[in-house]
Amino acid sequence: MASVNPPRGMRDFLPADKARRERVLAVIRERYRAHGFDEIETPVVEEYDRLHAGVGGDNEKLAFNILRRGLDADAVRAAADDQAQLSDLGLRYDLTVPLARFYASHRGELPTVFRSVQIAPVWRAERPQKGRYRQFVQCDIDIMGDASARAEAELIAATLDALDALGLEGATVRINDRRALDGMLDVFGFPADERPGVLITIDKLDKVGAEGVVAELREREATASAVDALEAFLTRPQTREFLPFGEGQIRKALPEGVGEEVVAHLVGIGEAVGAARGADSVGAELPLQFDPFLVRGMGYYTGTIFEIAHPSVSYSLGGGGRYDGMIGRFLGQDVPAVGFSIGFERIVDLVALAEGSAAEAVVLVHDRDVPDAELLALKAALIAEGSRVRLERRTKNLKALLERATADGYTAFATVSAGVERADLELKPLG
Amino acid sequence: MASVNPPRGMRDFLPADKARRERVLAVIRERYRAHGFDEIETPVVEEYDRLHAGVGGDNEKLAFNILRRGLDADAVRAAADDQAQLSDLGLRYDLTVPLARFYASHRGELPTVFRSVQIAPVWRAERPQKGRYRQFVQCDIDIMGDASARAEAELIAATLDALDALGLEGATVRINDRRALDGMLDVFGFPADERPGVLITIDKLDKVGAEGVVAELREREATASAVDALEAFLTRPQTREFLPFGEGQIRKALPEGVGEEVVAHLVGIGEAVGAARGADSVGAELPLQFDPFLVRGMGYYTGTIFEIAHPSVSYSLGGGGRYDGMIGRFLGQDVPAVGFSIGFERIVDLVALAEGSAAEAVVLVHDRDVPDAELLALKAALIAEGSRVRLERRTKNLKALLERATADGYTAFATVSAGVERADLELKPLG
Repeated sequence: MASVNPPRGMRDFLPADKARRERVLAVIRERYRAHGFDEIETPVVEEYDRLHAGVGGDNEKLAFNILRRGLDADAVRAAADDQAQLSDLGLRYDLTVPLARFYASHRGELPTVFRSVQIAPVWRAERPQKGRYRQFVQCDIDIMGDASARAEAELIAATLDALDALGLEGATVRINDRRALDGMLDVFGFPADERPGVLITIDKLDKVGAEGVVAELREREATASAVDALEAFLTRPQTREFLPFGEGQIRKALPEGVGEEVVAHLVGIGEAVGAARGADSVGAELPLQFDPFLVRGMGYYTGTIFEIAHPSVSYSLGGGGRYDGMIGRFLGQDVPAVGFSIGFERIVDLVALAEGSAAEAVVLVHDRDVPDAELLALKAALIAEGSRVRLERRTKNLKALLERATADGYTAFATVSAGVERADLELKPLG
Repeated sequence: MASVNPPRGMRDFLPADKARRERVLAVIRERYRAHGFDEIETPVVEEYDRLHAGVGGDNEKLAFNILRRGLDADAVRAAADDQAQLSDLGLRYDLTVPLARFYASHRGELPTVFRSVQIAPVWRAERPQKGRYRQFVQCDIDIMGDASARAEAELIAATLDALDALGLEGATVRINDRRALDGMLDVFGFPADERPGVLITIDKLDKVGAEGVVAELREREATASAVDALEAFLTRPQTREFLPFGEGQIRKALPEGVGEEVVAHLVGIGEAVGAARGADSVGAELPLQFDPFLVRGMGYYTGTIFEIAHPSVSYSLGGGGRYDGMIGRFLGQDVPAVGFSIGFERIVDLVALAEGSAAEAVVLVHDRDVPDAELLALKAALIAEGSRVRLERRTKNLKALLERATADGYTAFATVSAGVERADLELKPLG
């Protein structure tokens, strides 16, 4: 017989947890909405071919695929050596692939520059471990149809505003650009076919340090002179110093010869974020850091990439980047696109939000012999006054009953005997 | 290549639709919460064995099953004649089976009488047709741990309150009891093994009428004398009259000899709903009708069953019933349970709710040459004042741009040239 637990790596949410999650999501939704982003929704299921088109990176392998309906025994046997035949649909593993499909499908019904919010679950068949689940919520904002640095700046301003509203002030956005990375590898002398592998190694810099990166590249027999150049650059004193964000600093952090266009785009982001946050257009106050070795895993990024750092935790609270090529794969016409995702499951436990409602939440603790009609009339009277009302039959352990109600957000209680009317009720505070 | 449309029978929601759906759900949530129901969440995925344990009725056949991971070719071939081997998980087809599992898993952490809200999507591989989708939202409230008529009354009061809050006043709840149906078939003389089939036929009464029901039963060779007795009863003038709800009327609507306990339970529901709604405890004002031929499809119902009728539509807006046996199957110990579901997809298009926010929503229509930093500063200033802000580059067809913004809920616009500051902005009303 099946277990009464949720499936492996997935979670039930009890009332207090569910309420806390919804409160956090409500704050995020409200801030994104203020910044002009519009929420959309797509089905949790997408076509198998869409989910396995090569844009999902490693996540494609983690997809939960849905068994094709109506297969007869012969069809199953025939699919034994090509299991893709067993499945025609799958659960989405991110919100970006569905968004690109959505945009390709509905472009004519959307504003020229479309700012979307998606707050919804995704599924990945990862090995369950602490803090990593097989169903989890993503909070994505994306801007389609704007190739300028303003798009990045709007995403960053909205994200920082949402974090501020959640009480997570002091976040910093680390920024890089895939074109800067590519230019840097080009300057060092890595041939184009080596660069994807080199980026995978560089992505481990925070974990293994410069020495580890260089050792791994030598072991993988990357072009030796290029590894030498990278090593020299990585061991400069100013590298990984995270200088204040600005044109001079960006130039200083990059090897000479990396494209002007990229630097101008990054500087433009800094100026616009500065204006949105009310800081000087270029200055020490900016919540931005240029990180020339930020890589981010997804293969579909084509330009700016970013991650959120926060002083309270060692891991990133979210990230995103520009993926100008993806929608073109679906639409047959390139559309610039850039997205930013808050790591909801990472922040929800960092946030303490009080219940928003000022209304009383009342537990009516009643004797066993109070007629149902009297209890329902009392409940209706309190609801009509704006209260939230729970009925509880009195038990021997009244203290335990009231403690649970307090944990569930109830703020007052009253005891009810037969014949009691609203005017007789004495509400006593809880907690 | 995969289509850019959502999978067959599923839907994308554009911003205006998504916002409307969320507004309706927020009202339902708020009312359920006021009535003391607590929202929970379970994973969308449940174990295959759980979904196919025989309690889901016809919905089990409509489940989307998830392909078991890590099957090798031999395992697939071996599963050709027993496809249950291909799947270990599935998408839930209702919220009741997951709730029963949830309750069995977490009973010790929940109040003795647990009132749950679940608002979440379910999936069924039905043949897509108008108004029927393969992913759709269900809104369920359930009460576990209360066998008394008060549980039904609390569900009905909360449901009617939610419908009122949505502007759907005037709904009526049609009530019956599976035990009354069973008692009636017993009185007529249908042997126990014929009764499930007879109920399936009686369920068609609204569609095919008394003649159709009788004809089908004769064709199916149900016990002839019992069919005669049913026919005589069905063709009494008072049957299907939907008398005002009360003890006398319930007795009148049932053949003699149907159990007293059932009548008392129904009368108890009427009195408590009357008290909650502020009507006389038994009287013409009650939003209840006793329908001795209401059947409802699900096999797991054991007692009261109900459906919502509304004068504006010919179909039911929701329904539910008591399923005292189900949790016992998971927990090994019977727990009384009763649930009521609003047919969200049926009501969402009937409801017109205005946007709740009093805040201004402003479109800034800007010239191409306004620097990003100026635009972001203006946007930030308006957001700080409490507005929602969208940036739009001026296009030739300004009228179309403003019409779309109005449809998306924007209430004002201003044009922006280079050098304009907040104090210079002239907000003009939209729409």
